[in-house]
Amino acid sequence: MARLVMKFGGTSVANIERIKNVARHVKREIDAGHEVAVVVSAMSGKTNELVGWCRETAVLYDPREYDAIVASGEQVTSGLLAIALKDMGIPARSWQGWQLPVSTDDAHGSARILSVNGDEIVARFGEGREVAVIAGFQGMHEASGRITTLGRGGSDTSAVAVAAAIKADRCDIYTDVDGVYTTDPRIVPKAKRLDKVAFEEMLEMASLGAKVLQVRSVEMAMVHKVRTFVRSSFTDPDAPELKTAGDPPGTLICDEEEIVESEVVTGIAFARDEAQVSIRRVPDKPGIAANVFVPLADANINVDMIVQNVSAEGFTDITFTVPTADFERAKAALAPVKAEIGFGTIEGATDVVKISIIGIGMRSHAGVAARAFKALSERGINIRAISTSEIKISVLIDAAYTELAVRTLHSVYGLDA
Amino acid sequence: MARLVMKFGGTSVANIERIKNVARHVKREIDAGHEVAVVVSAMSGKTNELVGWCRETAVLYDPREYDAIVASGEQVTSGLLAIALKDMGIPARSWQGWQLPVSTDDAHGSARILSVNGDEIVARFGEGREVAVIAGFQGMHEASGRITTLGRGGSDTSAVAVAAAIKADRCDIYTDVDGVYTTDPRIVPKAKRLDKVAFEEMLEMASLGAKVLQVRSVEMAMVHKVRTFVRSSFTDPDAPELKTAGDPPGTLICDEEEIVESEVVTGIAFARDEAQVSIRRVPDKPGIAANVFVPLADANINVDMIVQNVSAEGFTDITFTVPTADFERAKAALAPVKAEIGFGTIEGATDVVKISIIGIGMRSHAGVAARAFKALSERGINIRAISTSEIKISVLIDAAYTELAVRTLHSVYGLDA
Repeated sequence: MARLVMKFGGTSVANIERIKNVARHVKREIDAGHEVAVVVSAMSGKTNELVGWCRETAVLYDPREYDAIVASGEQVTSGLLAIALKDMGIPARSWQGWQLPVSTDDAHGSARILSVNGDEIVARFGEGREVAVIAGFQGMHEASGRITTLGRGGSDTSAVAVAAAIKADRCDIYTDVDGVYTTDPRIVPKAKRLDKVAFEEMLEMASLGAKVLQVRSVEMAMVHKVRTFVRSSFTDPDAPELKTAGDPPGTLICDEEEIVESEVVTGIAFARDEAQVSIRRVPDKPGIAANVFVPLADANINVDMIVQNVSAEGFTDITFTVPTADFERAKAALAPVKAEIGFGTIEGATDVVKISIIGIGMRSHAGVAARAFKALSERGINIRAISTSEIKISVLIDAAYTELAVRTLHSVYGLDA
Repeated sequence: MARLVMKFGGTSVANIERIKNVARHVKREIDAGHEVAVVVSAMSGKTNELVGWCRETAVLYDPREYDAIVASGEQVTSGLLAIALKDMGIPARSWQGWQLPVSTDDAHGSARILSVNGDEIVARFGEGREVAVIAGFQGMHEASGRITTLGRGGSDTSAVAVAAAIKADRCDIYTDVDGVYTTDPRIVPKAKRLDKVAFEEMLEMASLGAKVLQVRSVEMAMVHKVRTFVRSSFTDPDAPELKTAGDPPGTLICDEEEIVESEVVTGIAFARDEAQVSIRRVPDKPGIAANVFVPLADANINVDMIVQNVSAEGFTDITFTVPTADFERAKAALAPVKAEIGFGTIEGATDVVKISIIGIGMRSHAGVAARAFKALSERGINIRAISTSEIKISVLIDAAYTELAVRTLHSVYGLDA
């Protein structure tokens, strides 16, 4: 017997037929003797409809009201799934965020989970193995007693937080893909599904646009060591391969200790929606980086890659990337401080892509970066900027070379199936 | 300054444009210096959609889940109206049933309100006259912490209960008619809108199918002496006549003491969906009525009018009415006890109508019933059965004569405009 959290997203509960299909997935696990808590999103499209109504009512709407309105979507699906389960003879009840409660801070619209009280869920596992069907994406700010939401994709985070609270053996994320791949299969048909990925690797992949899991949910899984399993909700719930003792198809995101033989490189990720900003001839004196990035932070612009080289003749260049949508705003934010900082010019480009080579194994292997640079060079791909971390090498290149670069690197590191 | 509850039904909040119109109605009262709590229903059609999903998921669904699902409709409109009000510069916040709380029993799907905590609403009136926007139709069963709903039309009851809790001067029910009429204007074009109706009279009218207010809300208004004002939500919120000191158009349901000059007859109501059942030659001995009506109660059949005459030669006839939909079931419920009771035959008819003459003034006036019987007789309308209460005379007649009888009585009692 295991204790499982099963999370189903909006497309998996888009209509009553699919909700019944989800119930069959749950039944399979119950029949196998497991204790199950389910976390559901709103029916796909429903959240957009509710958000649309808020916007139609007022341009500037109170985020506390927005949360009360938008949280109703998950309220509906949690109730419907509980009904579907009971109709199959499985004891079940729905839980709204405020009922457990899922306690959050009061950052309405993008609240952070502070704690989840799973006592009642666990008690009811004991009394007849009742399935808990939990409305994802939502919580309550306890001091004010108001409903909060976690921001888009927040149901993943709900699921991981519930799994941590009830000490689940595994958190299964059912989604419209059957796992995490070495890269985007639409670009590299030979991309392979990974059996296991370390939390740290998944964190890099998630933040780089592998849209399988919300970044925050991976962070939370890493902190609480929640084994998180990405798998498909569109397989037949009663398929024989899901009922055998072996591992079902999918990708387990887990502690690196559980990965016996780490590959040097696990995957190639890319992010298209970043723009490059370069500030030329910045006088190299203490505090200069702060002078550049404080105005950007004040303008609420999220800076990603930052590259500053060792200065020559008292001047240096600083390059960084921002979301493409913020490109013009970033340049505008820096214009007023040009004299103060005393830099030369601002340059930039929006037709760039950031490509990242990710792998825990590269910590203990030399020459990983060199192989990338050589391979890209041989294809005539110019590297605009480079930045690295312990488990990641990122290069900024012209967007036109995206597919070529991804395929080249995928092949170089032996990831092709 | 007055303290008001304003209640808006589903058609009044059917879309964002109408919700903004509701906000203008609220603004008018705020501008006039009043303290305002608003109770809203779900957007029209939304509750039906949610109920439909429950039914599609399972034939027999858990009413606790049904309540959690269906209550989401009012959750959305309360949030949207709060947004619309704030957009007009009016301080406002939404309240779900569980947030105040509105405490109910655990009869899920048709729960009764036990108490409403209005302390927070009143406190916020004091701090900057914040408008409370309350999700109608819903509450919480405190012991289980689960959401309950009050049954169809329950938002009227929510509004009256909130008005009682905050000691409102008036509870305004905004609806798609502009008040309570002496009878159905579709049958009698000369029907007049009543300025004032006593609680007891309204109770008779509501239970007789004048579908303006839910019966339970009138009961609650009577018990707590909540002055309830029925008015139109489709007038221009900024119409000059709504801003003058005089009474706006509508009908006030109030204590009879507030009605200076009672009319003898206030209105003519009718109920088409009743069927007549007559049991012939019932041996007249103690306990016989119980023997007849206990089997009907066991079958959950709601009996309305009951007529039993003084017996002759040891036998009597008993006539009663049931909802037309339950006619066959009522006869079937009595068949097994025929021998035990020892009655002769069961007869009945579904093509009947119950017409009622209602008026608090008839308590102190003689001859009110006689005038009705004479007038109906002159038109050749046969009376099948008669029952009376202190403030009501009901006659059962053939359905074909409905309109003729209503018009005749409306004219006889001087109600024509």
